[in-house]
Amino acid sequence: MINKKYQAMLEGKSVIRQLSEYATARGAEIGYENVFDYSLGNPSVPTTPGFTKAMVDLLEKEDPMTLHGYSPSLTITSVRKAVAESLSRRFGLPYTYEEIFMTSGAAGAIAHAVRAVSQPGDEILTFAPFFPEYRPYIEGAGAVLKVVPADTETFQINFDAFEQMLTGKVAAVLINTPNNPSGIVYSTETIKRLAEILTRKSKELGQEIYIISDEPYREIVFAGVDAPVVSQYYDNTIVCYSFSKSLSLPGERIGYVAVNPRCKDAKLIIQMCGQISRGTGHNCPASIIQLAVAKVLDETSDLSVYETNMNLLYEKLVELGFTVVKPGGTFYIFPKALEEDAVAFCNKAKKYDLILVPSDSFGVPGFFRMAYCIDTEKVQRSLEALERFVKTEYPN
Amino acid sequence: MINKKYQAMLEGKSVIRQLSEYATARGAEIGYENVFDYSLGNPSVPTTPGFTKAMVDLLEKEDPMTLHGYSPSLTITSVRKAVAESLSRRFGLPYTYEEIFMTSGAAGAIAHAVRAVSQPGDEILTFAPFFPEYRPYIEGAGAVLKVVPADTETFQINFDAFEQMLTGKVAAVLINTPNNPSGIVYSTETIKRLAEILTRKSKELGQEIYIISDEPYREIVFAGVDAPVVSQYYDNTIVCYSFSKSLSLPGERIGYVAVNPRCKDAKLIIQMCGQISRGTGHNCPASIIQLAVAKVLDETSDLSVYETNMNLLYEKLVELGFTVVKPGGTFYIFPKALEEDAVAFCNKAKKYDLILVPSDSFGVPGFFRMAYCIDTEKVQRSLEALERFVKTEYPN
Repeated sequence: MINKKYQAMLEGKSVIRQLSEYATARGAEIGYENVFDYSLGNPSVPTTPGFTKAMVDLLEKEDPMTLHGYSPSLTITSVRKAVAESLSRRFGLPYTYEEIFMTSGAAGAIAHAVRAVSQPGDEILTFAPFFPEYRPYIEGAGAVLKVVPADTETFQINFDAFEQMLTGKVAAVLINTPNNPSGIVYSTETIKRLAEILTRKSKELGQEIYIISDEPYREIVFAGVDAPVVSQYYDNTIVCYSFSKSLSLPGERIGYVAVNPRCKDAKLIIQMCGQISRGTGHNCPASIIQLAVAKVLDETSDLSVYETNMNLLYEKLVELGFTVVKPGGTFYIFPKALEEDAVAFCNKAKKYDLILVPSDSFGVPGFFRMAYCIDTEKVQRSLEALERFVKTEYPN
Repeated sequence: MINKKYQAMLEGKSVIRQLSEYATARGAEIGYENVFDYSLGNPSVPTTPGFTKAMVDLLEKEDPMTLHGYSPSLTITSVRKAVAESLSRRFGLPYTYEEIFMTSGAAGAIAHAVRAVSQPGDEILTFAPFFPEYRPYIEGAGAVLKVVPADTETFQINFDAFEQMLTGKVAAVLINTPNNPSGIVYSTETIKRLAEILTRKSKELGQEIYIISDEPYREIVFAGVDAPVVSQYYDNTIVCYSFSKSLSLPGERIGYVAVNPRCKDAKLIIQMCGQISRGTGHNCPASIIQLAVAKVLDETSDLSVYETNMNLLYEKLVELGFTVVKPGGTFYIFPKALEEDAVAFCNKAKKYDLILVPSDSFGVPGFFRMAYCIDTEKVQRSLEALERFVKTEYPN
């Protein structure tokens, strides 16, 4: 019999995907260059020449039997070593390959991390606003997602609400900094206070509470922004990383789980990842993609365009009277809508071919997300449409 | 808290992996060329030049933004169309892209198929001897694996035992032909009778019972062997395919789910695969690998070596007095051990640097598996060791 849970999920189609499909259809009518499509978080800069060269070199020089052979069940050792070495050098923690497991992007990493540190029915806390795909990832792992309400003034953490929700049922706290959708980076003060609360509460409850730190935007931090390394402040931290954004490779599904070497169960968690992969039918990312990223770990695509775009949008939004917290990284901005109903606001914007995503599915009402991973030239052209939209629809 | 289920799984290490590790360690002592390593089912012939060329062409000619961009949630449409066209042409069923979903190999395909057609706690039947990884795949999906005892005379299906186990709790029957570990191909008679029983029982019970047909060895069928296309005989068939063996790409994790277009829920099952991927954190195989295999769907590596190896081994085994059913495909052979305890038998073989896998973990005692995906020259050299082993250890 057809599985009822997955069948029901088909009803709840992603709002972002629907808007993206609308933008594509509208583009077919009026030319896609005339649609200001801020819907999808898809990188707008190409991967590095180094990545392409690494792939071609592997294909032309390696023995195909070795190149395309099975990964070991804990993923390719040389790749894990290269990642550990890079992380140790950059972040000052003594990583070895035994704390690294390569995954199919951050989605795969979160799927493994949640399964490793929770029992079925345990709670995973996350902070609004949050990436809506967390819900299927966490529910798919048999855990329960609980959302801590947002601090809508700063989009740092609402600690009062957090402490109330931090009970013995909580296996892990899933954070995402730099944040999708707000663009905010948690400050050192925020991370210190989070670590302090979790350390105290772990002792009180006599159980580990993990931080699962989803860091696909780690390399997209803007000038002068305080961006602390979470693992330096809390031992029981599991980093979930993806090369999707830093190397513009979202389709190649490559990332990793890196457990803080100071976490006492680090090596065990990584070994369990190998078992979890069997249960999900996942079994390691593609060998050639693992080997290629290992050769370009210190490269990134030219990510500067995102800061340029952010500044253009931020200034215009402020000028037009929006309430908006300036992003510290990512390629998202998250202003307050000009009416309470963000869905109605975003629907009106469509008339101006501005594709904005209402905030409701991110766990906060009344805001909207713009994914400015588009050409700067298009951002510039969109400013006039934004002004026309605001002045026509919200004249006071 | 560390998940107890996955931690417990760490205790049950794969016998095959342990033997493979032993073979590697022994190889370090005496030279790997002197170890007759029949443990692992890893292809021994390289991928096709066409696949390598397809990869290099994509890297050199395609826009990297498109090439490495996110797959649609149901995987890349052009790839699904190419697979559907190839299947329709080869197997005479009217596949469209809406019945195809690309996966991370057959493991990923089975993980999706089981989740799509079962509710938690439902039973999945499989037939001994069976691939031991079925257990984590099925238990990971929340279903219960039940193993139908083998027909050890022929390794076709033990229908009496099957009919007794085919109750209303059974959501699907997982078959694997050509079979790992027996090398046997189910005959047309076997598939017809299986289909007839399932059709009758589905009607009696008023519920669909699916065949999940695991077909990674479909392209490795030996001369003159009757190898029916399962989907032609039973509408509710979900094919799980992998390019690991046909294109020697086990590490690249690429395969597909193909639901019989005559299955009334075919399109729904494929749409659900997109939702299942979210829950497992899987999200589509690597884009470039999807695109590359789509260009070489009608190619295979030179698979003839496996038949050559099989004939050499089969003849020698018969000559030495083994009871063995002649394989119809794959790169496995599954003779009866020369004593009741197959583990003891395989341990004795180690003294002759013959690495054989005892049958116990395949769900049948008293047999052993040889994976003859090794160089023919090595197979030839191993025959003398095999003879010496048998004549010394089992002189009567």
